[in-house]
Amino acid sequence: MREFSFIEEFMKPLGRTDERITLGIGDDAAVLCLDSNEELVVSTDTQVESRHFPVGADDALVVSRAIGCAVSDLAAMGAQPLGFTLSVTTPSLDVEVARRLAKGVAAGIDRYQTPIIGGDTVQGPRSFSVTAMGRVQKGRALRRSGAKDDDDLWVTGSLGGSAAALEDIESSLVGELSELHSVYWQPPCRLAFGQGLAKGIATSCLDLSDGVAGDIRHILKSSDLGAELDVQLLPINPLTIARFGREASFELAFQGGDDYELLFTAPVAKREQIIALGSETNTPVTRIGRLNSNSEILLLVDDGHATICTDLGYGHF
Amino acid sequence: MREFSFIEEFMKPLGRTDERITLGIGDDAAVLCLDSNEELVVSTDTQVESRHFPVGADDALVVSRAIGCAVSDLAAMGAQPLGFTLSVTTPSLDVEVARRLAKGVAAGIDRYQTPIIGGDTVQGPRSFSVTAMGRVQKGRALRRSGAKDDDDLWVTGSLGGSAAALEDIESSLVGELSELHSVYWQPPCRLAFGQGLAKGIATSCLDLSDGVAGDIRHILKSSDLGAELDVQLLPINPLTIARFGREASFELAFQGGDDYELLFTAPVAKREQIIALGSETNTPVTRIGRLNSNSEILLLVDDGHATICTDLGYGHF
Repeated sequence: MREFSFIEEFMKPLGRTDERITLGIGDDAAVLCLDSNEELVVSTDTQVESRHFPVGADDALVVSRAIGCAVSDLAAMGAQPLGFTLSVTTPSLDVEVARRLAKGVAAGIDRYQTPIIGGDTVQGPRSFSVTAMGRVQKGRALRRSGAKDDDDLWVTGSLGGSAAALEDIESSLVGELSELHSVYWQPPCRLAFGQGLAKGIATSCLDLSDGVAGDIRHILKSSDLGAELDVQLLPINPLTIARFGREASFELAFQGGDDYELLFTAPVAKREQIIALGSETNTPVTRIGRLNSNSEILLLVDDGHATICTDLGYGHF
Repeated sequence: MREFSFIEEFMKPLGRTDERITLGIGDDAAVLCLDSNEELVVSTDTQVESRHFPVGADDALVVSRAIGCAVSDLAAMGAQPLGFTLSVTTPSLDVEVARRLAKGVAAGIDRYQTPIIGGDTVQGPRSFSVTAMGRVQKGRALRRSGAKDDDDLWVTGSLGGSAAALEDIESSLVGELSELHSVYWQPPCRLAFGQGLAKGIATSCLDLSDGVAGDIRHILKSSDLGAELDVQLLPINPLTIARFGREASFELAFQGGDDYELLFTAPVAKREQIIALGSETNTPVTRIGRLNSNSEILLLVDDGHATICTDLGYGHF
């Protein structure tokens, strides 16, 4: 199938026009408009077969997950989605492939409340690159920098589910997903919660793609602070515990990647507001520690014993 | 090298802050701001090794070209660049690779007047995906649709240079480029000219990536018109003619891709303005034909003889 037919027959029908999309799929570029008191938030995320998703996985699963991973960055900035572009690199583009891609795009649009506005379709080793765009009130975007000494450290949802699912991911490449495998294939994207945090609640925020152990460094480094994390408080995915026991599950939750939950800091005075925001937006939220002035040192506190944690996050190369 | 170090040491120093970039490289996402009378223009372009650029080509050449190809879509919309994100997929990321990538990004930023605002760096078969963002006065973006019966058909620059360069592209993968090979590696990006066209001059516009023969269909299809193209007027790259003779060069200019010149339509009454815009912006511009009411039929007229042209453009699959 030619790229032109793929776009006309499979992608254009998925496009929507809304008040902010002046021009969607099908031209040289898309055209969007913002309100005068808004800023544009942009993030790009690329997923390569065998590196970021298992060989042989259904295009539909991979594409909708890729959309979720990119939109998750919008959540971490406290932004509302405007739209995404999808660049598909695929070895072939027959009708079956086109149908699976369209199914994944439709699922991603629906699950992550973000319309498709354009993209590119090329031949090559399978990979997917998504650029997500969103909007935020001027000056309100949540950054990785900005944490203050004595701020609380919080995390949404539970951790270690994706890392546990990856242990036998080959059993979930096509067809129905188990509850645990859904955690990996359907990143949570805490959009409503992130938007709430951006209303003057959080001082810094990011989404966990490489594990708490690795990602927390970005917050500590940019604010030149340290943190004490209470091991007992880390919310571990119960399905992970049921399968791997508490000790192994802690490792998966602390060092494992792909959870796409939000890790953020906020002043102690905001605790009640954060808990209220969690229930309003149906988002589990847990206070797991506190920042301190020990430059870039992460201390793990477990039942009164403290150990210094060296960098254990996921490295891409 | 870890992705984090690559960004810190090689990419961040290339970032700029200007009044429209609230937050650049290094966070979960970039933040941009627009004026209230502007719209955002977004385009994504992916280049895969062996498909879109030759195996073994210098990362620096490939990256700067990828930036040019994406920014060219902004030119075709009449937009002013705001910034681009670059997703790099590379088999390895040692210091040498990092240096070549940084050299290509720096060249692209400089040549196409567009700052880098973010991206992603992942391991995998070599490819580069660029999402370019620009701004345009509200309602002024140049679309592929909008051409009118009797409009003139115009093209910028000259055609067939890239297709000719591709004939022996292996001789230009590293080091100094010949004048002909520069045509392929350094797409022209007619930004200033495109911005001028968007001030009420052109009725439709696109950039030529797949050849006139293929790309003109997008204009004809969306306006339900036909066109008569005068073969004698098609501006063929003189280096191509010198090497391949006139007849073969016509094929390269008419069917060959990768020229990234603008193909556009405008009312007859705009001829003088278009010629003046060409000299102001140092952009060669040639009137090559006329639109008519013969739905989607492209007629090639050569010295009084007319032939109907069937679709000959480049197919990606």
